[in-house]
Amino acid sequence: MTQIHEINALKKYVRATNFLATSQIYLKQNVLHKRPLAHTDIKPRLLGHWGTCPGINFVYANINRLIVKHNRSFIYLVGPGHGFPAVQANLFMEGSLSHFYPETIPYNETGIEDICKKFSAAYGYPSHANPEAPGQILEGGELGYSLSVGWGAVLDNPDLIATVLIGDGEAETGPLAASWYANRLVSPATSGAVLPIVHINGYKISGPTRMGRMSHEELDLEFRGLGYFPIIVDNELEEDIYVQMTNAMDTAYAMINDIQRRARSSEDVVKPKWPVILMRTAKGWTGVSEYKGKKLEGNCESHQVIVNKCATDKGHLDALDNWLASYNFQELYQMNDKGELIFDADICSLIPPKQLACGRQHLTYGGEVVRALTNPDLEKLSYGPEVPRGHRGYSMLKMGEWMRDAFKLNRDQRNLRIFSPDETYSNQLQAVFEETDRAWQWPIESWDEDMSREGRVIELLSENLLFGMLHGYTVTGRHGMFPTYESFSQVISSMADQYCKYVYASQGVHFRKPLPSCNVVLSSLLERQDHNGYSHQNPSFLGAMLEKHPKIISAYLPADANSTLVYTERAYADRDKLNILVAGKKELPQWLSLEEARKQAKDGVMVWDFASDENPDIVLAGCGDYVTQECMASLVLIRELLPRVKIRFVSVTELSSDGLGSRKFKEKPWLMDEIFTQDKGVVFNYHGYPNTIKKLIFDYKGSRRFRIKGYEEEGSTTTPFDMGVRNGTSRYHLVIDMAYKLFQQGVIDETMHVSITTDMLQRLVDHRNYIKANGVDPIEIENWIWTR
Amino acid sequence: MTQIHEINALKKYVRATNFLATSQIYLKQNVLHKRPLAHTDIKPRLLGHWGTCPGINFVYANINRLIVKHNRSFIYLVGPGHGFPAVQANLFMEGSLSHFYPETIPYNETGIEDICKKFSAAYGYPSHANPEAPGQILEGGELGYSLSVGWGAVLDNPDLIATVLIGDGEAETGPLAASWYANRLVSPATSGAVLPIVHINGYKISGPTRMGRMSHEELDLEFRGLGYFPIIVDNELEEDIYVQMTNAMDTAYAMINDIQRRARSSEDVVKPKWPVILMRTAKGWTGVSEYKGKKLEGNCESHQVIVNKCATDKGHLDALDNWLASYNFQELYQMNDKGELIFDADICSLIPPKQLACGRQHLTYGGEVVRALTNPDLEKLSYGPEVPRGHRGYSMLKMGEWMRDAFKLNRDQRNLRIFSPDETYSNQLQAVFEETDRAWQWPIESWDEDMSREGRVIELLSENLLFGMLHGYTVTGRHGMFPTYESFSQVISSMADQYCKYVYASQGVHFRKPLPSCNVVLSSLLERQDHNGYSHQNPSFLGAMLEKHPKIISAYLPADANSTLVYTERAYADRDKLNILVAGKKELPQWLSLEEARKQAKDGVMVWDFASDENPDIVLAGCGDYVTQECMASLVLIRELLPRVKIRFVSVTELSSDGLGSRKFKEKPWLMDEIFTQDKGVVFNYHGYPNTIKKLIFDYKGSRRFRIKGYEEEGSTTTPFDMGVRNGTSRYHLVIDMAYKLFQQGVIDETMHVSITTDMLQRLVDHRNYIKANGVDPIEIENWIWTR
Repeated sequence: MTQIHEINALKKYVRATNFLATSQIYLKQNVLHKRPLAHTDIKPRLLGHWGTCPGINFVYANINRLIVKHNRSFIYLVGPGHGFPAVQANLFMEGSLSHFYPETIPYNETGIEDICKKFSAAYGYPSHANPEAPGQILEGGELGYSLSVGWGAVLDNPDLIATVLIGDGEAETGPLAASWYANRLVSPATSGAVLPIVHINGYKISGPTRMGRMSHEELDLEFRGLGYFPIIVDNELEEDIYVQMTNAMDTAYAMINDIQRRARSSEDVVKPKWPVILMRTAKGWTGVSEYKGKKLEGNCESHQVIVNKCATDKGHLDALDNWLASYNFQELYQMNDKGELIFDADICSLIPPKQLACGRQHLTYGGEVVRALTNPDLEKLSYGPEVPRGHRGYSMLKMGEWMRDAFKLNRDQRNLRIFSPDETYSNQLQAVFEETDRAWQWPIESWDEDMSREGRVIELLSENLLFGMLHGYTVTGRHGMFPTYESFSQVISSMADQYCKYVYASQGVHFRKPLPSCNVVLSSLLERQDHNGYSHQNPSFLGAMLEKHPKIISAYLPADANSTLVYTERAYADRDKLNILVAGKKELPQWLSLEEARKQAKDGVMVWDFASDENPDIVLAGCGDYVTQECMASLVLIRELLPRVKIRFVSVTELSSDGLGSRKFKEKPWLMDEIFTQDKGVVFNYHGYPNTIKKLIFDYKGSRRFRIKGYEEEGSTTTPFDMGVRNGTSRYHLVIDMAYKLFQQGVIDETMHVSITTDMLQRLVDHRNYIKANGVDPIEIENWIWTR
Repeated sequence: MTQIHEINALKKYVRATNFLATSQIYLKQNVLHKRPLAHTDIKPRLLGHWGTCPGINFVYANINRLIVKHNRSFIYLVGPGHGFPAVQANLFMEGSLSHFYPETIPYNETGIEDICKKFSAAYGYPSHANPEAPGQILEGGELGYSLSVGWGAVLDNPDLIATVLIGDGEAETGPLAASWYANRLVSPATSGAVLPIVHINGYKISGPTRMGRMSHEELDLEFRGLGYFPIIVDNELEEDIYVQMTNAMDTAYAMINDIQRRARSSEDVVKPKWPVILMRTAKGWTGVSEYKGKKLEGNCESHQVIVNKCATDKGHLDALDNWLASYNFQELYQMNDKGELIFDADICSLIPPKQLACGRQHLTYGGEVVRALTNPDLEKLSYGPEVPRGHRGYSMLKMGEWMRDAFKLNRDQRNLRIFSPDETYSNQLQAVFEETDRAWQWPIESWDEDMSREGRVIELLSENLLFGMLHGYTVTGRHGMFPTYESFSQVISSMADQYCKYVYASQGVHFRKPLPSCNVVLSSLLERQDHNGYSHQNPSFLGAMLEKHPKIISAYLPADANSTLVYTERAYADRDKLNILVAGKKELPQWLSLEEARKQAKDGVMVWDFASDENPDIVLAGCGDYVTQECMASLVLIRELLPRVKIRFVSVTELSSDGLGSRKFKEKPWLMDEIFTQDKGVVFNYHGYPNTIKKLIFDYKGSRRFRIKGYEEEGSTTTPFDMGVRNGTSRYHLVIDMAYKLFQQGVIDETMHVSITTDMLQRLVDHRNYIKANGVDPIEIENWIWTR
């Protein structure tokens, strides 16, 4: 096709989609604008974001042109997701909607009526990109994540190009700002490419954008500095913007191919200069330019619905009528005998072959595209009898070994990645470097360790960038882990919320199939911030996520390394969830054999027989590895003091907003009584905020018997034991609490109760003094070993 | 002083502080290195981040030089806060530590022994910048916030310069990346300046940084693109880096003065090009260059403690000994008769006059520097009898009017700001634009509205940047508000956590005085996302913050506009807290006179007599404005159905992790019984996750009687009423729940219970069908007005 023909076709395509987008926002009938508008054609309530739609359409058409021309796979991530009428218009045009929703959205006037009537309506189509819409891998509501998700999607998909449209509003967010840095990380040899297009329409909801007021020169400088090759396309320039844009897309496509060709030959491509298109068009382009002297086009006034009184105001209605007429949609289609739409041949020339349409990309639907993981052998990795019960081991080291073996076993599948904010070593996962490296496309120096172009560990000190990449990687069917300092997991809490929303909403969509879960590993826990102190003590992420739907959030708090291995395996096997694994990185006592750990993982709650008596007078429970150590130490203590008292120890390793343990305890509440007894006091030692457990057991009728201990927001740079002292989770506190419960129950008398309490308080004072004087924990605390 | 003299003095100063930083990390005795080291001099456990210390020291000395030279106020924000030994060394040298801690840290050898012994030790000094240290306004643990906090501190402090040292690790975070954009916002005419210094030492904890592998040209491009004037200082260049740096600091200082002078004359300064210094020095500069062939200096190996076996290994000890000796500290001081340290005259020439030392800046301590707010007149602003009980009004509009009046009343004090992610209009606060504008230093077009250089509203679409600025603004004694969409408040949850940690830790520091609270306003609530849908429905921030210490977090959920006004006033009057105000932006029924609202605000919980019966059979409670409307509607319904049943309505408007209402209900739990009765069922309709209320009332012995309703993670683009239908918070659900409780209590019989339930379920089905068919709520829902 000649360029003139192409441009002509593109213009028609965009006219059609602009028309359909506008139609969705305003019309409840006469949706093809076959006759001039009447007030009665207008929806009673006008919703939607018009301003960004024309840009989305313009880019969509240009992507289609490349798909058709090169027969290549593209996905399209729309950062300004609120321009959903544009996305929907294109999904209709290319036939994806009629494919997935043949009954409600047939490829005819009825289909268009459906998308118009139901746009932004109750029980209709949401107003921003969403999983109900084909091809979308990102909820379009919260801004800032499009680029990082795009980078994640192309990892290990060497033929894929993710075109990411970034709004200039979105580009002001921190997460987006740091997403540019991923060009350091993604290998052009073995991964696909992201083609970012920044849509500089100059305005946000009520004011100008940062980029909107920058000169071409400033934009060019900034993106060259970021390591990209910027291509500016601007409607204010003399050359037709359609010509500019096809040239820009061709240049960008050629550059991507060139970088990939070089990297895939023997050349070591350092600092690949990926293209970025900076696309300047007016906000609300092709809409109503001005109304009664007020500038609408090219102004924030076009952000949402313009001429919004058209249901009642003649002037507004006429403006809308003229606007719709300007697209001359009638000229662009015919109907065949069956009433099906037959678009103009030029338009058809831009509709990709079915399987290549952006809305049909199989990568975006889960299910069969999931690249299943071959699991390492737990028998081989776990601690066996060489580490007797109570002796020390390392949870995170073991997790690292699991990941190392998994990387090895899945070398060919290329379906596994670690995304870490520079903490793979610090979180003790370094065993992975026996098998792989950190990915780095910028210069590598001779003294650098564990770095190569093809490393499978993605490290940069931006939690936002990394979690976005993990999102993109998992929703396209691969497996990943985001290990991070517990305290800084809060940085991505909003992203995790949006991820959960995407996954939860996906579960209700018939064509979306299960996805690998997103696995967040919290380590460097609050109890062991001996060095880092107060800023690094924060269990908020765990607490906040446990207010969410139990279908999407599970938290696993293995008490030792073998449990950690079992839960690591589980987390990768889980589907359609966000799992939180909580494991300390320091040496800790080991409690369970692999077999026992597997048994406990079935229920998420287990009575530890080896530490428990029959017919207990009282129950002690632990959830979290460091606090479990304190529990076990308190058992030794209290049994010395009260040899005849019978105690049960319960280990809790799974939490969800359904409560403690697996779902079965919610469904069969009497099982909770079997574990926690029907009437005995329970002292519960928890890793995080006590409130977290309070809310989870509120509905359990026995919850009044629980005394819940946990992090009380007290801490600083101090010793591990002193953290327990400050927050009331130490072994001595537990003895005090158990003694109090026993006294209340009449198991011990007042004298004994007072004597034990006094003894324990004295030990707490002594220990605190020792710690103050020596800066370390007393030797009997530091080297404590369980024996029974 | 000649430049040679200056350079000489700087070198001595930095030698001294490098020595003192090193000493703190390694030595428990022989801290002045008066004799060669012995193994016994070394601490048992070595902690700290050496690698960044020399850079912090180098910059500190250079700031001191400017202070002395120009007699001007500087504060110093240290992004790489983990290099605390360096900060502490300077605070010692300049005398700030001895000023604030005369007994423990005198200006002599004992003082140095103290800071060495207690560095990173239990009950000692934390390992990163913290409020216990003078001059610090930011916890130094979580990276990414130094620059935005710096920008916030200089707002409305025209003479202040905030030098912000940004680590090249920190510079990879999203929040930091977006912080550069503040140059669009801060007026050089009426605010001070930030001098950012990016410390490019090339490495993070275990790998290279993004900037560390960039060329000078790339760095220059990026920062020029960002709108700054970059000045590169590099130890690898031929010229002495001390000479480079003094020149760079002089140039930067002159540029700042020039921009300010121009802006403060009649010139309209568009796009002020603030200087930024890009400072390249080796990580661990002046430490151990290499050890046994391993590159330490200029490598990530220097990040933390190098030669860390020096307590036992002779080679390590010798390396440390030589390293310490290289500073020749003995040459730099003498002791007078009293044992006080008298530093070399050159060093003394760089110690600022007391009140100007960075550690003595009164701006950083709260108390008397707080610029008190003159409050608007609530009588004038509130809804009076012209809006009868149950008629409609607007909470956020009223808050906007309060802010407008406050801006007016405090025009001269310049002590109030709004920080909003582009949502001042969208959150209905537009009344403020009658008095002020949005600040904007880039070009302003003729059609732009409410924008000027001097606007007091700071808008950019980066929650991270804005919250950081609010942090900087409030901890230096001014008042601010961060209004945001409820759902996106999660973006700053981690920053809010760190803010709370700073404030909570500050409360224990004798020289820190009360600070204005940080006020987060959540609007555009989940119930009214008719247009935006699922991604915009998220009460997680509120839930998460309510796990934190009640001393620092209060949440206020006013039920109407008059209550909103009262709580707005309260939030600004509060000290040392983070307040969360939750208020919908749509039209809602008004319930309380100003007087009633004031009465309710005292306790945070109130029985609404006008809606309650004596001796109730059941209690209905509401917390949140939209859900309160449903409560009131359910009262009308149930009273029609069961005219003889007596019902009490309780409105809850204050929450903290202490529970419902003000602290007195925690202290006097029997007051809860007075409100909620001793034995009657309670149906509680809550705005957010039900779990949030469950954890708050867990400890109240009557909590078993509560049936808690709230957001169950169900929603989409739908009508306001349908959100209640989906989540079980609608008026019909409440009637069902009340009827069930009444049946359980024997107040109504089974027939009546079944009849009411059936009726309500039918209404729910009918309404849902109506909504599905019409896309809007039935008229009797939309126009519902309370009358009694």
